[in-house]
Amino acid sequence: MLKFFYAPKTCALASHIALREAKAPYETVRLDFGATDQRKPEYLAVNPKGRVPALATDRGVITETPAILAFVAQSFPKTRLAPVDDPFAFAQVQAFNNYLCATVHVAHAHRRRASRWADDPAAIADMQRKVPQTVTECYDLIESQMFKGPWVMGDTYTITDPYLFTVFQWVDGEGVDTSRFPKLMEHRQRMSQRPAVQEALAMDQPAAG
Amino acid sequence: MLKFFYAPKTCALASHIALREAKAPYETVRLDFGATDQRKPEYLAVNPKGRVPALATDRGVITETPAILAFVAQSFPKTRLAPVDDPFAFAQVQAFNNYLCATVHVAHAHRRRASRWADDPAAIADMQRKVPQTVTECYDLIESQMFKGPWVMGDTYTITDPYLFTVFQWVDGEGVDTSRFPKLMEHRQRMSQRPAVQEALAMDQPAAG
Repeated sequence: MLKFFYAPKTCALASHIALREAKAPYETVRLDFGATDQRKPEYLAVNPKGRVPALATDRGVITETPAILAFVAQSFPKTRLAPVDDPFAFAQVQAFNNYLCATVHVAHAHRRRASRWADDPAAIADMQRKVPQTVTECYDLIESQMFKGPWVMGDTYTITDPYLFTVFQWVDGEGVDTSRFPKLMEHRQRMSQRPAVQEALAMDQPAAG
Repeated sequence: MLKFFYAPKTCALASHIALREAKAPYETVRLDFGATDQRKPEYLAVNPKGRVPALATDRGVITETPAILAFVAQSFPKTRLAPVDDPFAFAQVQAFNNYLCATVHVAHAHRRRASRWADDPAAIADMQRKVPQTVTECYDLIESQMFKGPWVMGDTYTITDPYLFTVFQWVDGEGVDTSRFPKLMEHRQRMSQRPAVQEALAMDQPAAG
């Protein structure tokens, strides 16, 4: 059985949605970043990077969102979450997810995680000030050039969709003018109606009681 | 025929090596970053991101190093550059390349490309000061946990090897103590002896005359 390690309000949501879309059998381990669970020895034994997500399989642990997403698509081919047997089409999916991972996620991360890359509080404040600009540039490009509609890759829902949905949510509260992104806002709405998305989001909520 | 867009001394080297290892038929278009070729309309028509590498195929353009590397491996399967038909083993390859792309490359980029994420010269200087620390943390993790040897994934050379070789070269002149990384330094040496690496590096040199 797959074991999925995640924390609420992180990019792990993308993989969580994909696992549910794929109807994969899996169990979850929820980390509490407030208690820095991700730095505890038991989790570092799973993922020495101290980040989420991580997916434990019977052959070992997989990390990094684009790798987990492609693994889910390839392991549960019936749900056709990626064109894994068409090198060009698969490369388009991978290029999109890679842009989210290495450019868009990184642009967002300079707001809450700026201390990864600087120590001086004034430097961190300057990095945070620039986030609305860099993030807007990313989504301008996605809105105008990369997003095909109604799904990211066009008519077919793929592993790019939960990842875009997850990262694009982070514009809330960032001072970004979302009226620039009508296609992406409509995509967000369309995603919110999918049962897999609602179920994964529900598991991001604080535990009751 | 594939057309490969690259610039010397960039991460495009990884894809260039892979194309040669795969014995792919391709032609090259060399961009001059000094002349900001990457911002000119003719290149933005190829890759609106204004970055390298880009690989033009008869079906369209592929960007992002991990996507290009997987495409090359999948399109030229005889050279077995990635275990594309084994979802778990392929995910390990992808996770490694993704770490290089989204964490290691990004850590390096805070030295020369810090202005992507901050405007204040003092902030940029603070980001640059932290680079040796963040870069060292990345390679400590690769040296101690991720690198199997003699190649990244163990006995088999894969698309992770040219990418690690390319990015790890950037420690030169960064104030990083490379004696911490004996396995990675040996890997660099082993890579330098491969004809594909020598040929791709030769095409990174300034044009004669």
